[in-house]
Amino acid sequence: MKLDESARGVFVIAPTPFHPDGRLDDASADRMTDFFLESGCDGLTVLGVMGEAPKLDGAEALGFAARIARRAGKAPVVVGVSAPGFAAMRALARGAMDAGAAGVMIAPPSHLRNDEAVLAYFRQAVEAIGEDVPWVLQDYPQLFQVQMPPALIRRIVSECPSCVMLKHEDWPGLEKISALRGFQKEGTLRPLSILCGNGGVFLDFEMERGADGAMTGYAFPDMLVDLVRLSAKGDREAAHDLFDAHLPMIRYELQPGVGLAVRKYVLMRRGVLASDAQRRPASALSAAARAEVEYLLGRLARRDPRAQLARAA
Amino acid sequence: MKLDESARGVFVIAPTPFHPDGRLDDASADRMTDFFLESGCDGLTVLGVMGEAPKLDGAEALGFAARIARRAGKAPVVVGVSAPGFAAMRALARGAMDAGAAGVMIAPPSHLRNDEAVLAYFRQAVEAIGEDVPWVLQDYPQLFQVQMPPALIRRIVSECPSCVMLKHEDWPGLEKISALRGFQKEGTLRPLSILCGNGGVFLDFEMERGADGAMTGYAFPDMLVDLVRLSAKGDREAAHDLFDAHLPMIRYELQPGVGLAVRKYVLMRRGVLASDAQRRPASALSAAARAEVEYLLGRLARRDPRAQLARAA
Amino acid sequence: MKLDESARGVFVIAPTPFHPDGRLDDASADRMTDFFLESGCDGLTVLGVMGEAPKLDGAEALGFAARIARRAGKAPVVVGVSAPGFAAMRALARGAMDAGAAGVMIAPPSHLRNDEAVLAYFRQAVEAIGEDVPWVLQDYPQLFQVQMPPALIRRIVSECPSCVMLKHEDWPGLEKISALRGFQKEGTLRPLSILCGNGGVFLDFEMERGADGAMTGYAFPDMLVDLVRLSAKGDREAAHDLFDAHLPMIRYELQPGVGLAVRKYVLMRRGVLASDAQRRPASALSAAARAEVEYLLGRLARRDPRAQLARAA
Amino acid sequence: MKLDESARGVFVIAPTPFHPDGRLDDASADRMTDFFLESGCDGLTVLGVMGEAPKLDGAEALGFAARIARRAGKAPVVVGVSAPGFAAMRALARGAMDAGAAGVMIAPPSHLRNDEAVLAYFRQAVEAIGEDVPWVLQDYPQLFQVQMPPALIRRIVSECPSCVMLKHEDWPGLEKISALRGFQKEGTLRPLSILCGNGGVFLDFEMERGADGAMTGYAFPDMLVDLVRLSAKGDREAAHDLFDAHLPMIRYELQPGVGLAVRKYVLMRRGVLASDAQRRPASALSAAARAEVEYLLGRLARRDPRAQLARAA
Repeated sequence: MKLDESARGVFVIAPTPFHPDGRLDDASADRMTDFFLESGCDGLTVLGVMGEAPKLDGAEALGFAARIARRAGKAPVVVGVSAPGFAAMRALARGAMDAGAAGVMIAPPSHLRNDEAVLAYFRQAVEAIGEDVPWVLQDYPQLFQVQMPPALIRRIVSECPSCVMLKHEDWPGLEKISALRGFQKEGTLRPLSILCGNGGVFLDFEMERGADGAMTGYAFPDMLVDLVRLSAKGDREAAHDLFDAHLPMIRYELQPGVGLAVRKYVLMRRGVLASDAQRRPASALSAAARAEVEYLLGRLARRDPRAQLARAA
Repeated sequence: MKLDESARGVFVIAPTPFHPDGRLDDASADRMTDFFLESGCDGLTVLGVMGEAPKLDGAEALGFAARIARRAGKAPVVVGVSAPGFAAMRALARGAMDAGAAGVMIAPPSHLRNDEAVLAYFRQAVEAIGEDVPWVLQDYPQLFQVQMPPALIRRIVSECPSCVMLKHEDWPGLEKISALRGFQKEGTLRPLSILCGNGGVFLDFEMERGADGAMTGYAFPDMLVDLVRLSAKGDREAAHDLFDAHLPMIRYELQPGVGLAVRKYVLMRRGVLASDAQRRPASALSAAARAEVEYLLGRLARRDPRAQLARAA
Repeated sequence: MKLDESARGVFVIAPTPFHPDGRLDDASADRMTDFFLESGCDGLTVLGVMGEAPKLDGAEALGFAARIARRAGKAPVVVGVSAPGFAAMRALARGAMDAGAAGVMIAPPSHLRNDEAVLAYFRQAVEAIGEDVPWVLQDYPQLFQVQMPPALIRRIVSECPSCVMLKHEDWPGLEKISALRGFQKEGTLRPLSILCGNGGVFLDFEMERGADGAMTGYAFPDMLVDLVRLSAKGDREAAHDLFDAHLPMIRYELQPGVGLAVRKYVLMRRGVLASDAQRRPASALSAAARAEVEYLLGRLARRDPRAQLARAA
Repeated sequence: MKLDESARGVFVIAPTPFHPDGRLDDASADRMTDFFLESGCDGLTVLGVMGEAPKLDGAEALGFAARIARRAGKAPVVVGVSAPGFAAMRALARGAMDAGAAGVMIAPPSHLRNDEAVLAYFRQAVEAIGEDVPWVLQDYPQLFQVQMPPALIRRIVSECPSCVMLKHEDWPGLEKISALRGFQKEGTLRPLSILCGNGGVFLDFEMERGADGAMTGYAFPDMLVDLVRLSAKGDREAAHDLFDAHLPMIRYELQPGVGLAVRKYVLMRRGVLASDAQRRPASALSAAARAEVEYLLGRLARRDPRAQLARAA
């Protein structure tokens, strides 16, 4: 099943599990996939910014994406294919789709600095991967330094029929959701799925502004699922109560660099990953940071039992 | 009294109050100064990133800094003097000190991309403002794009005796505080005040890592004062409880661009500013954003009575 | 006389003359102005990128611009007013126009990264300086990092009636001139003066593509005048012969940072400036660089007698 | 034979020949290799910035490097292996060395903004490719935005014994060569080959400052060979005469983007490449640009018979 603009819910950004010696950890990959789906996630996204993708060679990247897609069964898997050149992008995109992926995700390279250049880039990307591959536009200016205001996103979506989803992680970003939904109301933008990133740090209000869900990687994706559900059914106070309980941890996990270490550590503590190892060059948690995470877990456990974990060794 | 490395507590980043027609609002400036000091703040910082400094001409900037310094009496006032050229930096720095400021704050310009260039810049800045002017090193890579790891900060502090404080707002930044305090323990870095920025979004842990306080601009500086006090006396749970109650609002106010509008709006709602106007070009709160802020205030009021405000008109 | 879209010829970018102790050198400023006009220049531009503008405080900048405008008499003087804030831009622009400037020049700040942001910036700049002030759009992506393709320049010019000239220094830039002139042929762009910068390193072909002349700062502006004249009358071989003779020196003077030192040195050697001093922080020519400049002057003197200078002390 | 610090002369940056339909053109690749060696080049560099490397997938890149290395026989071939991740860098570096390359070239990624980060990057790169692979440090701040002053280059070279060469293309760059050679005279920097890039636009003086030769891609590498030879034997006037004759074309070919189109066009006109095609996305010469190149060739032919080419079709 290919991804389309009706996608909604939670597409969790999956890390790439490694053994401490740097090899891919297939058992953890399978267990992680199962855990995410059992948590209620609607889909998975692999090889994203937090997926350590540049540390995998081409064969490894394709193999990992294929494994997750196979394990996920009917649940859609999106594969990050951003690359410095269209040859590598095409190879991974075609290979992943052949292996069962539902779509791919593309971020614009940081040197694009005007609307024409951004549009040209995405046209060329579509030419490279093929018009039959549905893709997600990643809008993450804090990292990629490319700024796409609502009207530019509308142009990209209009000119590229195979673009079916926006991974929204501009900051600030609430008005952008309102603007895009406003375009749709006035009939100048076709249907488009909007899933939000940025670790979910604005998901409480993003849902209220019209987002379809989340595509992000918090270590409690089951909370994201609940939040999206509560918000969808209009249970505002309950949604914010749940969100606020998790916000101290969401904020901690959102830190660049350190964040992936926190995420893998918590997923290991939850029994999902066998190890929190990153492939080299890796960033590790200091003892102080690990103690802070444990302290946050302890405080969170009072309000969300999912954070009640056996003591770390 | 000049600023020195013993500074601690809360130095609130003050916005610049304007009338709706764009003139400086002196009455609000005075009332704001009084409010900040009554809230327990130890000092004020004006003409920072959130102070709309580039919208003031040279005479206005100096006049505003002088007014605040006069009103603040014995409380130290730090004046942001970052400028594209040393002539403007010198003029504002010398004028502000003559008018009673306690020190100045300098951020490195974004084109500096290696240690030598950063060091040379600060040496030249000290030559420009004079070695008798104490200054605060602003470390804010997300905005200024200059990255100063701990060892480089140590070199700057060593080579520039008049640098007395670090405005710490790197992100992630917790390990940086630990590293600098570690340098001091091993005797390779002289005493230095470390006050934290970034809207206070990590202040709970920053205090525990060894920060001396906060230099930031949240619309509830009285909460920052309490947090620093609770943390200083080791009341960890109470500190985190207070912090967590405010985190949803802190997070909302931290948004670039929108954040200043939120801050001025809440200060107006608290009766501190007569207007939340920004001088043009200004960013305004949408109706949806204003409603979100009111919703957050309402939720916060259940846990902190300072957020119980009469309904907005 | 205000600048308008009929401007053509050579507008020389004037350096700011200093005494060795850092004071403005008024006598050199006057002599330089006379020299430029006697060399056949049609206008002067002051306080540009090569004018050490950030080293002047507001009063100095205005005083210097006023002095040059007075001395230049009927010849138009353009004043660079790019600034980090609109308050400073407005103050200098209004003051300079009152003092007899013909127009101002504005470059976009480096953080602008999409068409909307660029357009909004220039709209705000026009609001700040007033619609009665003619202005030059500086298109210099190598320095300012803002990329404006031809269609975006057309939008800026269309939306801002007071924009009368493009300072063209994109690189590569030949096709941009052809595109803009093509827009005019097809009737979608109003008349606009195009003067070329970048030290003149492509002026041979830029004239052939449709430029109206040069706005740049080579130390032999008399050569630029000849080149523009030869090119305008279609004497292609003579134009290229003259240009090629100077290209080794043009190339040498085009170096960032060092270039200003070369320019001031050669102007001093030609008797125009009393000193090649820059205000601090300054970049100086090494002995090796000075010897290279002298060597280039010696070689040039065989083909252009204007380079036959008495030996340096 | 592995590359070492004794390398000197001309290492020509080779383009990647394509058929008009986008396939690699093996026959042109072989003919080009022969031409470069017959022109007197001492080595070749493939898959550099001008080699369209990102348009090749991993297998193509390795195949192309291997073909050139085989064809070049004893002449050393350097392979550009810069990549967004160490997995891809390692794969290409190890593969190329196994296929007969003499060394690899690495450029730092643009996000590195302090000395520690730059040093860490190169340490990790060496760990990835293996300490047995000699490598060239590419110093090209205009493109990669990483600034490495002489003292930082000295640190990199000191900490990485397998770094044997600097591809010098900082701009301005003459003082950097003098500084590095000065370090060696004072005994603080070990022997290091310095070959200069930037299209050769400063090669006249770079040789005089102490460079060992050129690593660049001008379409007349035979001229570069002559220039290096004339300069090495101290025939200064002849060297500059030859250089100055070519400078108008060197300048034209140095344009970013367009430059590769010019280079391939001239190499096609010289009978080296069957086609000047670039793989998509490609930049093509406009008719006006092609006429300008032909005009420059015509003028050059009066001073260098190698530019006397039969008329283009």
